[in-house]
Amino acid sequence: MLNGERKISRPLRWAMVGGGRTGQVGYKHRTGALRDNTAFELVAGAFDIDFERGRDFGVNIGVLKDRLYPDYETMFAEEARREDGIEVVSIATPNATHFEICKAALEAGLHVICEKPLFFTTEEAQFVKELAEEKEKIVGVTYGFSGHQLLLQMRAMIEQGKIGDVRVVDLQYTHGFNAADEGDKSNSAQKWRVDPKVAGPSFVLGDLSTHTYYMSQLILPHMKVKKLLCDRQSFVGSRAPLEDNAHVIMHYDNGAVGTMWTSSINAGCMDAQRIRIVGSKASLEWWDSKPNELRYEIQGEPAQTLVRAMPYLDENCQADERLGALHAEGLSESWANIYLKFAMAVDAKERGDEETLRHLVYPDIDAGLEGVRWVENCVRSADNGAVWVDFE
Amino acid sequence: MLNGERKISRPLRWAMVGGGRTGQVGYKHRTGALRDNTAFELVAGAFDIDFERGRDFGVNIGVLKDRLYPDYETMFAEEARREDGIEVVSIATPNATHFEICKAALEAGLHVICEKPLFFTTEEAQFVKELAEEKEKIVGVTYGFSGHQLLLQMRAMIEQGKIGDVRVVDLQYTHGFNAADEGDKSNSAQKWRVDPKVAGPSFVLGDLSTHTYYMSQLILPHMKVKKLLCDRQSFVGSRAPLEDNAHVIMHYDNGAVGTMWTSSINAGCMDAQRIRIVGSKASLEWWDSKPNELRYEIQGEPAQTLVRAMPYLDENCQADERLGALHAEGLSESWANIYLKFAMAVDAKERGDEETLRHLVYPDIDAGLEGVRWVENCVRSADNGAVWVDFE
Amino acid sequence: MLNGERKISRPLRWAMVGGGRTGQVGYKHRTGALRDNTAFELVAGAFDIDFERGRDFGVNIGVLKDRLYPDYETMFAEEARREDGIEVVSIATPNATHFEICKAALEAGLHVICEKPLFFTTEEAQFVKELAEEKEKIVGVTYGFSGHQLLLQMRAMIEQGKIGDVRVVDLQYTHGFNAADEGDKSNSAQKWRVDPKVAGPSFVLGDLSTHTYYMSQLILPHMKVKKLLCDRQSFVGSRAPLEDNAHVIMHYDNGAVGTMWTSSINAGCMDAQRIRIVGSKASLEWWDSKPNELRYEIQGEPAQTLVRAMPYLDENCQADERLGALHAEGLSESWANIYLKFAMAVDAKERGDEETLRHLVYPDIDAGLEGVRWVENCVRSADNGAVWVDFE
Amino acid sequence: MLNGERKISRPLRWAMVGGGRTGQVGYKHRTGALRDNTAFELVAGAFDIDFERGRDFGVNIGVLKDRLYPDYETMFAEEARREDGIEVVSIATPNATHFEICKAALEAGLHVICEKPLFFTTEEAQFVKELAEEKEKIVGVTYGFSGHQLLLQMRAMIEQGKIGDVRVVDLQYTHGFNAADEGDKSNSAQKWRVDPKVAGPSFVLGDLSTHTYYMSQLILPHMKVKKLLCDRQSFVGSRAPLEDNAHVIMHYDNGAVGTMWTSSINAGCMDAQRIRIVGSKASLEWWDSKPNELRYEIQGEPAQTLVRAMPYLDENCQADERLGALHAEGLSESWANIYLKFAMAVDAKERGDEETLRHLVYPDIDAGLEGVRWVENCVRSADNGAVWVDFE
Ligand SMILES: NC(=O)c1ccc[n+]([C@@H]2O[C@H](COP(=O)([O-])OP(=O)(O)OC[C@H]3O[C@@H](n4cnc5c(N)ncnc54)[C@H](O)[C@@H]3O)[C@@H](O)[C@H]2O)c1
Ligand SMILES: NC(=O)c1ccc[n+]([C@@H]2O[C@H](COP(=O)([O-])OP(=O)(O)OC[C@H]3O[C@@H](n4cnc5c(N)ncnc54)[C@H](O)[C@@H]3O)[C@@H](O)[C@H]2O)c1
Ligand SMILES: NC(=O)c1ccc[n+]([C@@H]2O[C@H](COP(=O)([O-])OP(=O)(O)OC[C@H]3O[C@@H](n4cnc5c(N)ncnc54)[C@H](O)[C@@H]3O)[C@@H](O)[C@H]2O)c1
Ligand SMILES: NC(=O)c1ccc[n+]([C@@H]2O[C@H](COP(=O)([O-])OP(=O)(O)OC[C@H]3O[C@@H](n4cnc5c(N)ncnc54)[C@H](O)[C@@H]3O)[C@@H](O)[C@H]2O)c1
Repeated sequence: MLNGERKISRPLRWAMVGGGRTGQVGYKHRTGALRDNTAFELVAGAFDIDFERGRDFGVNIGVLKDRLYPDYETMFAEEARREDGIEVVSIATPNATHFEICKAALEAGLHVICEKPLFFTTEEAQFVKELAEEKEKIVGVTYGFSGHQLLLQMRAMIEQGKIGDVRVVDLQYTHGFNAADEGDKSNSAQKWRVDPKVAGPSFVLGDLSTHTYYMSQLILPHMKVKKLLCDRQSFVGSRAPLEDNAHVIMHYDNGAVGTMWTSSINAGCMDAQRIRIVGSKASLEWWDSKPNELRYEIQGEPAQTLVRAMPYLDENCQADERLGALHAEGLSESWANIYLKFAMAVDAKERGDEETLRHLVYPDIDAGLEGVRWVENCVRSADNGAVWVDFE
Repeated sequence: MLNGERKISRPLRWAMVGGGRTGQVGYKHRTGALRDNTAFELVAGAFDIDFERGRDFGVNIGVLKDRLYPDYETMFAEEARREDGIEVVSIATPNATHFEICKAALEAGLHVICEKPLFFTTEEAQFVKELAEEKEKIVGVTYGFSGHQLLLQMRAMIEQGKIGDVRVVDLQYTHGFNAADEGDKSNSAQKWRVDPKVAGPSFVLGDLSTHTYYMSQLILPHMKVKKLLCDRQSFVGSRAPLEDNAHVIMHYDNGAVGTMWTSSINAGCMDAQRIRIVGSKASLEWWDSKPNELRYEIQGEPAQTLVRAMPYLDENCQADERLGALHAEGLSESWANIYLKFAMAVDAKERGDEETLRHLVYPDIDAGLEGVRWVENCVRSADNGAVWVDFE
Repeated sequence: MLNGERKISRPLRWAMVGGGRTGQVGYKHRTGALRDNTAFELVAGAFDIDFERGRDFGVNIGVLKDRLYPDYETMFAEEARREDGIEVVSIATPNATHFEICKAALEAGLHVICEKPLFFTTEEAQFVKELAEEKEKIVGVTYGFSGHQLLLQMRAMIEQGKIGDVRVVDLQYTHGFNAADEGDKSNSAQKWRVDPKVAGPSFVLGDLSTHTYYMSQLILPHMKVKKLLCDRQSFVGSRAPLEDNAHVIMHYDNGAVGTMWTSSINAGCMDAQRIRIVGSKASLEWWDSKPNELRYEIQGEPAQTLVRAMPYLDENCQADERLGALHAEGLSESWANIYLKFAMAVDAKERGDEETLRHLVYPDIDAGLEGVRWVENCVRSADNGAVWVDFE
Repeated sequence: MLNGERKISRPLRWAMVGGGRTGQVGYKHRTGALRDNTAFELVAGAFDIDFERGRDFGVNIGVLKDRLYPDYETMFAEEARREDGIEVVSIATPNATHFEICKAALEAGLHVICEKPLFFTTEEAQFVKELAEEKEKIVGVTYGFSGHQLLLQMRAMIEQGKIGDVRVVDLQYTHGFNAADEGDKSNSAQKWRVDPKVAGPSFVLGDLSTHTYYMSQLILPHMKVKKLLCDRQSFVGSRAPLEDNAHVIMHYDNGAVGTMWTSSINAGCMDAQRIRIVGSKASLEWWDSKPNELRYEIQGEPAQTLVRAMPYLDENCQADERLGALHAEGLSESWANIYLKFAMAVDAKERGDEETLRHLVYPDIDAGLEGVRWVENCVRSADNGAVWVDFE
């Protein structure tokens, strides 16, 4: 049970690059990081590509004017000179900029929290992973849905054999907001998403499915994809070569099979992510639109609905509880949980507490790298005619 | 609105082969055919492989003892001799017997209603189609879920452009009854299903997905599969080479993409069939476990739930209505609707009323043939390593 | 498991009064009674107030022309003269006629199945009860939803202590079809429902809530209402003094409290009946719009969803099963179950088999009488200013 | 759309009385007030009846040690002496203390935010209302669910005539956590709730139903209860005279009728609050367990499901939006919305901006007073034998 009391000795000095007034995801970062003011304090920022707008915004959310910078290079340089300079930076800019900013941040001696999809290539991810190791810094990746408690319940139940051997992994992240190309032109956050130069080698695979893929790994830590096949389409033609719909079939090393449907043209769909894990005895199913509920369907028995905050849940699940039963948690608690773990990881790293780091479950650089690898393999399959490829 | 009043001048004289006391599906046939006693009357039967049991059963459901036969050959021969002999026969025996019995029935001058999967090969289906044409008889196939009214609502709405261009066809028929091999041994109806000699070239593809595939064709009469890829597994190992789980990806001639998940190892799943049709403007979704509801999800608008029997539904949908709003219909109404159309088809055929036949929408020999073709293509893909194959 | 095989030695010779082509409820009777042609055969009728229409209708559903009568008096008289005359009659006419027709039927030596609300007064019900006893005939009442199997599951679970002591009985039968008075004028079946001379002392209390009240008694056979308070309104003013909305609070003899909301002005409501029974340990909840599911909510444990046809259900529940799991049953199975029990009751009565009669659970004359009593008490309370009245 | 940017010129200096480490509701206050650090900053506290524990807790959530006080009297006195002393105080202590602390806070020149049920009697509420007016201070009441955006959507749609004339108000706040008396002994927060000296004249009526009652007023600002009848029980006997279950029927001045079911013995219930408003044309229904969805059920049309954050929602609803569509909001956003409005009210009051105050919709002293009045009338009715009483 979390109630805002400090988990680390003092809040970390934190800044953001991007995530300004017009940014879609910036508020989720602040909501997560600043939940209780005991994990992070926001002291600096280069929030916007437009400096004036970014500074005005920064002042409005309580950052001191002289710590609002025109760009990340200046921020990293200036802050490095201060005694009370920033320790951690979050990156919430379009995809194409992630690699350069991460690299610069690590080189400036900062811990980094970066948006997904992390980078364009696994090489970049490998490079940053090594740089972080060298610099002894944490790199966290904001798979923002992955802090929902019931995912840890799924992980625990599967670990405990409650569903038997895993046979089918059924994943979905689809929505229906972008079924027409007008949206691509009028909405700036959508515009870059369908431009390969800024978005990278994929649209929905990177933008959406990396989340769900990470959550499946969180739930099934011992299972690895061995090969996969990806079929992608650009239903809104102007998006080609980037896909707005894709279906993937995966084979896991333990013989299980998986599917992912990711789409931005699933017209009218408001229940975005579904995760269903089918075992030899039972299945578990969770939807991000009803994050407080988990379906446990046992072969030959009545199906069960587990709800958040109940004493029958696993202790790892309950550890992330905040509001109590009957009180709906939402996405902001998920982000808060992730950010709290980032803070605990940074703190442990700084204290050289490897023991804590070993047990802390959060989306780290490996999780980011795996997301990039996922997209790479999907794209390789799709671009070769939707053929089976070994997962490399 | 149907209320049992006759649609044809008198009930057809009808018999069954199979579907006896221990048969799983026989009662659904009788429930459908005899719904109002104005379409069919059950006058003869060779209900069981065990004649004694079959005769006892036949007497119990009201068939005269002297019209209960030891086998279909005898029945067809004896009945042909009677003035009031049977006109139509339904076949509800295991798959391997369908072809021979259909052939014999047509040759005996009977209209035929046969279970799915119709036959093992398209050649057989083609042969029977030609035989039926030659004999001027109807062959109906009992895709028993396809009589649910709201499927006609989906068909009408798509025809009327209510969802725009169809982009994704998302199909599922999975359940969780057969996740362990004990069932295969103890249950006779399950035993033959995993024996290729009796079941044919597939288990769940033929047993389950042919239903859903037909329903997708009913809803989308103008769309044709161009190529597909099928990945199948035998999670219960003793079932190999027959699959108990399969995933299919389809490409349609109009550029749409489709998926089918069919499985008998989806542990705990009690919501078997889902049909979701995604268009450029909206989506439609229907579940056979909630047959009285249809979700209509329009991009950018509140989602709508249409319910059976309401005046806002299409007239073709309403034509099959029986119980009125607030009154749940179920699978028995679906079967009744199909059987009524079989009767109307037989009647029209006998009267040479081709006009009526052209407009009657029901699962006919072509629907049966397409189901066989579907399985054949899926198996060909799967057995070549889950590769893309042209739909032939 | 029911599959249509006979439960009695031969079908009963059966007729209907009312329930003709334009009648709302007639088809449900025929659907229930003739489900398997082993319980009843329809041999005569006075289906309609308009003889021509009724005769045309009767012929269309397969009744011989010479057994179609202009009125019930003629039918009872003529049929009494036949060797193969009717044995049972169902009455599906507007409420005001039930008493006279029941009386005449019993006097003509017939078993009777009558629509609800049975009569206008408990005196009438008491009179008919005594007449039936004297004549040694069955009187069944078509509480048509009460044949849904999961109600017997609720009854069994409560009997077995699965929810602890019953504390709250939460009942609802509301819909939203009649929120405006136009409907009262244009629809003939609605017109008489708001006319006290034909409908009796209530509209929705009699028309709707008697169903749900009976089901609560079926589920809770040992609990009796001790006193109640009823508050009723006529939101569509022209309906006064008959109510189109009522709320009732009940006190049971065991200290439990109950509520009933019944309404025809619950605009847009398509989930009509809810029954929730709250115990000291757990609750059970069932909706007639989802008759295949039962929620079992246990204090401090995950909620369970029980589904029809599963082996974990009570044997009394399973005994009424027909279609098997994954196959949605609906209202027609409920009617079939009730009618089958009527047939078994008639058969047992004729054979003097009191043992069978003692164990047969079905809506009998007492159930009908209790429904009339329920309405009477509600109306007495309401008409005295919505005050508490002892349940008499 | 809210993104954390300041709505007032600087955060208000804020303290809490109660809501310490063991308090159930304290974290919700901090989560709400400190959401974006632009409305409030937490600078002092008397968090706990146990000073040591409260001080330790205060330090842990970032309050300076010397502003952590042994009791509210000391805090008000000490803080009044500081230039940067507190301006607003929230009271999250058991009910019996609310009146004295509110009074002391107002007398100390502070704005007050107080927990519900506000006080024991309307006299107390009236007294505090007058004191607040005299002191020119705001008194807010934390009906913490009332900040859910879709409630404003309901308000707007009803105001716009989208459901016609309101006929039935169907309210429910029930849960199943306290169906046995062991809980009352072992849980300190539950213990006082069933002790009239601390809880006041009611248990669930005050603890639960005041929330839902306020929300109904928020949605239906022009409707007033004219008379009501309340029937209450103590199913766990040791709770008498306080009820753990109550049913209320209300008559409104416009002819509408309402019901409230409130209970802590609704075993297994995890969907606590339901609000259904039935109009002459349509109904609206919302559940606090699914706060992102609103059902709009229109007579004779398909039911609609409106979801949070969509452009088709009313501007007043959208104004409180934070996370965007597909992103579940929960109870913390509701509290944040309410606290933001408290801050805006305080700020406007301080600036003498009566215009802003007139338009700001939030739970103020009148809302608190109405909640007390609601309980008082319910109790008066119940204690006189569940009779009708005029709402005074
Ligand atoms: N984790 C999630 O749930 C989630 C959700 C949405 C977006 N994202 C990811 O977040 C990133 C941003 O996406 P978005 O939708 O917020 O994009 P956006 O276009 O809405 O916002 C981008 C923001 O970055 C700023 N910016 C751009 N370049 C900058 C630079 N060089 N320096 C400083 N600021 C700069 C812009 O001014 C803007 O404020 C993307 O990588 C996206 O994939 C993640
Ligand atoms: N349409 C549907 O929804 C549906 C549902 C279940 C089964 N089916 C199909 O129905 C067929 C039967 O399946 P089932 O599950 O009822 O099988 P089953 O094994 O339960 O029953 C088969 C019945 O056929 C009888 N039989 C077997 N061989 C016979 C013969 N030569 N002559 C006469 N009777 C014979 C058996 O005695 C038994 O009564 C299969 O083709 C199956 O695919 C369709
Ligand atoms: N059990 C249920 O679920 C259910 C549902 C609907 C109605 N009902 C009850 O059934 C009864 C009929 O209701 P309805 O909605 O079908 O009414 P309706 O007005 O739709 O039909 C009444 C039928 O009775 C015929 N009729 C009337 N008087 C007759 C007479 N003297 N002799 C022969 N026929 C006569 C009419 O011609 C018509 O066919 C009522 O008591 C009603 O409460 C029960
Ligand atoms: N708005 C809501 O949703 C909601 C939810 C729960 C409780 N409440 C209300 O909040 C209030 C507190 O309820 P709770 O469940 O948190 O109670 P609780 O017993 O869990 O906590 C009470 C807290 O107040 C402290 N306290 C008690 N007396 C004090 C005093 N004189 N000075 C300082 N601190 C003192 C205790 O140490 C404890 O921290 C009640 O009025 C309750 O009705 C509201």
